[in-house]
Order: sequence, then structure tokens, then C-alpha cells
Amino acid sequence: MPRTAFFISDRTGITAEMLGHSLITQFEDVNFRRVTLPYVDTADKAREVAEKIRAQAAADQCQPLVFSTIVSEDLRKLIVVEEALTLDFFEIFIGPLEKALGRESSHTVGKSHGIVNFEEYKTRIDAVNFALAHDDGVMPRDLNEADIILIGVSRSAKTPTCLYLALQYGIKAANYPLTPEDFGNHTLPKLLLPYRNKLFGLTIDPARLNQIREERKPGSRYAALDNCQFEVAEAEALMRHVGVPHLSSTTRSIEELATSIMHTAGLTRRTY
Amino acid sequence: MPRTAFFISDRTGITAEMLGHSLITQFEDVNFRRVTLPYVDTADKAREVAEKIRAQAAADQCQPLVFSTIVSEDLRKLIVVEEALTLDFFEIFIGPLEKALGRESSHTVGKSHGIVNFEEYKTRIDAVNFALAHDDGVMPRDLNEADIILIGVSRSAKTPTCLYLALQYGIKAANYPLTPEDFGNHTLPKLLLPYRNKLFGLTIDPARLNQIREERKPGSRYAALDNCQFEVAEAEALMRHVGVPHLSSTTRSIEELATSIMHTAGLTRRTY
Repeated sequence: MPRTAFFISDRTGITAEMLGHSLITQFEDVNFRRVTLPYVDTADKAREVAEKIRAQAAADQCQPLVFSTIVSEDLRKLIVVEEALTLDFFEIFIGPLEKALGRESSHTVGKSHGIVNFEEYKTRIDAVNFALAHDDGVMPRDLNEADIILIGVSRSAKTPTCLYLALQYGIKAANYPLTPEDFGNHTLPKLLLPYRNKLFGLTIDPARLNQIREERKPGSRYAALDNCQFEVAEAEALMRHVGVPHLSSTTRSIEELATSIMHTAGLTRRTY
Repeated sequence: MPRTAFFISDRTGITAEMLGHSLITQFEDVNFRRVTLPYVDTADKAREVAEKIRAQAAADQCQPLVFSTIVSEDLRKLIVVEEALTLDFFEIFIGPLEKALGRESSHTVGKSHGIVNFEEYKTRIDAVNFALAHDDGVMPRDLNEADIILIGVSRSAKTPTCLYLALQYGIKAANYPLTPEDFGNHTLPKLLLPYRNKLFGLTIDPARLNQIREERKPGSRYAALDNCQFEVAEAEALMRHVGVPHLSSTTRSIEELATSIMHTAGLTRRTY
């Protein structure tokens, strides 16, 4: 029987989910059922939520965990029920911060993921458009604008990593697939030569690559294990030879790839 | 003079950034300089970080704020300095959770954003590929697979919202631009008729749309304010007439659009 974890917020619930998720993953042998309840921004909705938590406690026959980020104190009180352990992020942290900063917090709902200003929004959308326009080796003239260019064999997670860099950090990331034509002499494709210091490599375990490619093109030469082994070995040799920093996507999530790349390349986020 | 906020983690720093960001945005009139220090996973790195914080306190002549998510207690202790206010997320929350769950946490670094399992990773990458393959009205046969189809005029934030839904939640989102050919009789484009219950609309303030389009195609008919007013009015009339739920992207961030859409459409995330 799983234990229920609620993520509750007066806005999107993203912070509550992240907060709760990174905590409950520390308890590996507990089976959690996760319920996100966003936009709890009126007293009626808060009371409904309290009822839901109570009902869940009765159904589960065990105490639900409630992770919340509700800015309004009045609403926050309404969701606290005896039957659950409620950990409210604002309640716990705002006090010490007000003291340290010597002023009261604005207690405004929805500061965190709203559009802060049009410029920041534009930076992000521009970065997404840049990633889409420079995906999979499409390299128009404005590659000079790229903050980073990911290289690697097909299906090494370049595209999702570029999109993540754009959406989360406003970073302009292009990507270029290394294909069998690029191998043999361990030199960079000509197109990439002027941008050598913007390159970052992604590599992947050949067995995993084989598995991913088989799903896409079953039985093809492209997907065959020996071909995957060849491509990965050549791509890695090229990166080592030219001195391109690289990471394996085999055991890393998109978030980890993106943040490691930024860290290694010394990039800082353009948006919050 | 800005006050410095450090976001420190033994892994990506994403949770620390989010945690800290949603807290400091509650203090509107304080000017923060933000510094993220990820991958602090050895005693040496932790000591270096402590030095950095001390130096910053001296330079700023005011107490830095340190938001951290460091799982190891030993490392955590090393980054705490007298000169700063340190709020560690794990330190504060893990205790009450261990008590409620009746067991010790695994204190394992990097649970939160690692690849938990290949299936979940695949769900996410498949969703990204789906969004890319069904962007901007490209509608191959497998539209049946779509969890949601966003409609709206060109530049109403459909594409970044679809990509966000895919990357963050593993949701398969297609998008279809409403263009002047679709207007006039307030009926849906034929292609979309079979998927009526999967549709969700995005709209936008015509003045904002004009501003966005002018950046893209300055002086064009496409960007002209009266054309933006016409397209938005027609698109909204169509959505109302057909009964497609819709939201304005004018004052909402991509996160807010994505979570509101999921909430309204009753979709739940496929990945954590």
C-alpha cells in the first residue's frame, strides 16, 4: 500500500513538487503515490484540499505527507490537518529570512514562476527558437551567437539537452550530429572549426545506444550493436584528440547533463 | 550594492536554485546577486565554498544568504560559516520526515535528478521527439497519441509550452497554428475535428503580439497591430464558439501555462 505525498501550492506547484520529490527520494524503500494540487488560491479551495487529505489518510490507513508552498498565512493554516505531516516551505524559511534581511517579505502569491519582465521572457523564447533552428546539424549563419554547440553521435541526447538549456536557462545551444562521414581522421568537421571553443561532446554507452536506436529503426545497420560500438569509439577518439570536453548521457538525466555542461563551460543562466 | 545569494548543492543545484529563488522573490526591494555552485561533493570543494562565502561577505559588507541542498551531513557542516545565513533544505526537512516515516533516509547524493529508470527516461525523450515532430501544424498520422494539442495564432507561445510539457512532464503535446485561412466561419480546421477534446487554446494580448512579431518580421503585414488585433479576435471567437478552453500567455510564464493546461485538462505528469 503506497503512502500518499501531496504537493500543494497557490500557484504552479513546481517548487512544492521539486522540494517534496528531492526529499522523498531519500526514502528509497517507501512506495509513494504522488498528488499535485496546484492553484489552491482561495479559502474554499484550501478547505477542499484539507478534506481531500483527511480522506486520503483514512483510505491509506497511514499519515500522508504534505509538501506545500503557500504564501498566504491564512490559506496555509486551512490546509493543515492533524491526520498529515505538513511541511510548508514558506512557513519554515520566511521567518529567518525576514530577520536576516531586516524587512518583511511581500507575501505575494506567484512571484516565483510568473513573467518577471518581458526581456527575460524574450531571452528564453529566443533561446528556444535558436535551439530549434540549430538542431541536428542545421547551421545557419548566426552560429556565432551560440553559447554552446553540442556534438555527439545520433541519439546521444543532444536535442533534449539543448532544449533544456534554452527553456531553463535561456542558453543558446546548437547541436551537430557526428556521423560516419565525420570519422576516420579524428579531425573536426570543417563547419565546426571556427567554433572549437564552443564545443561540448555527449557520448553514450554503445549497448544503450543500440537499445535506443533499435526502438527507432529496428533491424537497421544504423541500430546494429557493432555499428554503435564503432560510432561511439570514433566519436570519443575524435573528442579526445581535438580536446573537446565530453560527458556520457548513459547514467545522467537531462537536468544533470545541462547543469554539468554549464558548470564545465563556465556558462551562467540568463533567466530565472 | 547587491546582496549575494548562494545556491549550493552536491549535485545539479536545481532544487537549491528553485528553493532559494522562490524565497528571495518574496523580498522585492532587495537587489540580489545570485551565485550557483553545483557539484560540491568533496570536503575540499566544500572548504573552498566556505572560503568563497566568507570572501563575499567581506566584499559585500553584508551577510550573504546560502541556500543549500547537501545530503551528506559532514559536507554540509563544512559550508556553514558565521558570516552567512545558511538554510539547508535537507537539514531542516529530513528530521521530521524520518520521524513520520519511521525509518532513516538513505542519505544518498543525487537521487533527485538522476536517471531513475530507463522507461521514465524514454517517456521523456519520446515526448520531446513527439513535440518536435508535431510542431507548427505538422500533423503526421500518430496524432492519436497526442495527450494535448495546443492551438493559437502564430507566436502565442505554443512551441515552448509544448516543449516544456514534454521535457518536464513527459506529456505528448502537438501544436497547430491558427492562421487567417482558418478564420471567418468560426469552425475548427478539418484536420483538428477528430481531436476536439484534446484541444487547448493559447491567446495573447494583440499589443504584445505586435511587439513579438515586429522583432521577427519588422514592418510586415504579419506583424502589423491591426492584423494582430484581427487574428487574436478571430482566434478567440473560434475558441469560444467551439468551446475550446484557453489561456492567455501575455502575463504567464511557460511554467504557468504548462501547469495550468495540465490542471485544466486533467493530465498528470509521466516523469519525475
